[in-house]
Amino acid sequence: MRKIEHIGIAVKDIEASNKLFEKLFNAPHYKMETVASEGVLTSFFASGPNKIELLQATTPDSPIAKFIEKKGEGIHHIAFDVADITAEIARLKQEGFVVLNETPKQGADNKLVAFLHPKSTNGVLIELCQEIKA
Amino acid sequence: MRKIEHIGIAVKDIEASNKLFEKLFNAPHYKMETVASEGVLTSFFASGPNKIELLQATTPDSPIAKFIEKKGEGIHHIAFDVADITAEIARLKQEGFVVLNETPKQGADNKLVAFLHPKSTNGVLIELCQEIKA
Repeated sequence: MRKIEHIGIAVKDIEASNKLFEKLFNAPHYKMETVASEGVLTSFFASGPNKIELLQATTPDSPIAKFIEKKGEGIHHIAFDVADITAEIARLKQEGFVVLNETPKQGADNKLVAFLHPKSTNGVLIELCQEIKA
Repeated sequence: MRKIEHIGIAVKDIEASNKLFEKLFNAPHYKMETVASEGVLTSFFASGPNKIELLQATTPDSPIAKFIEKKGEGIHHIAFDVADITAEIARLKQEGFVVLNETPKQGADNKLVAFLHPKSTNGVLIELCQEIKA
């Protein structure tokens, strides 16, 4: 857990939220990216060493659509940067955390990712992510 | 918005959560602090340049007690580090954000803080914080 890599925020209308967060950060988003496998369109803002990732559902059964239906717009997950995601998954399983992806999967922003179930982490959906080296 | 200073997480039992987050980070919390004016007991963990602040209510009318009653345990707010909180408050008001503390107040961890109403920020409670210099 070398730093907070990003915070994921579920939004209904990513274009409207891009304008809002551009005002907040006094700087525009620096990229958008679709992750078809997750049913999300993402938009990234930088805050020093950290990022904010806006998430809009692209399909009705996207996890983001379900989240907004249940809880409304807001913070969806925290992602921590890790050096070795496979080792972290093994360590956290050993510690009793419920790892939702025992084999890391490809996420947005050129990352291998794995999630921990919020039931094992005080209600917080935690993502581990490791940069994929070229 | 120079970085994510910390993420605040509302918890029911800070001693139990300290043990949980110690396992998550593979490192213990580095301090605890009561903020009597807010009715909270806090505990801090480091993740590189960022922090996680666990928040337990110390009074029944603490904002954290109300949050947990309404939404359960989980992420309560994101705090961004700013160089000049007074200038940021003025800028964000001008941009249409609802600033809950027009005069910054003393928060935990030797900070001047001000919150933005989540209704103006896509459901996300945002804290601005500026380190108080000695």
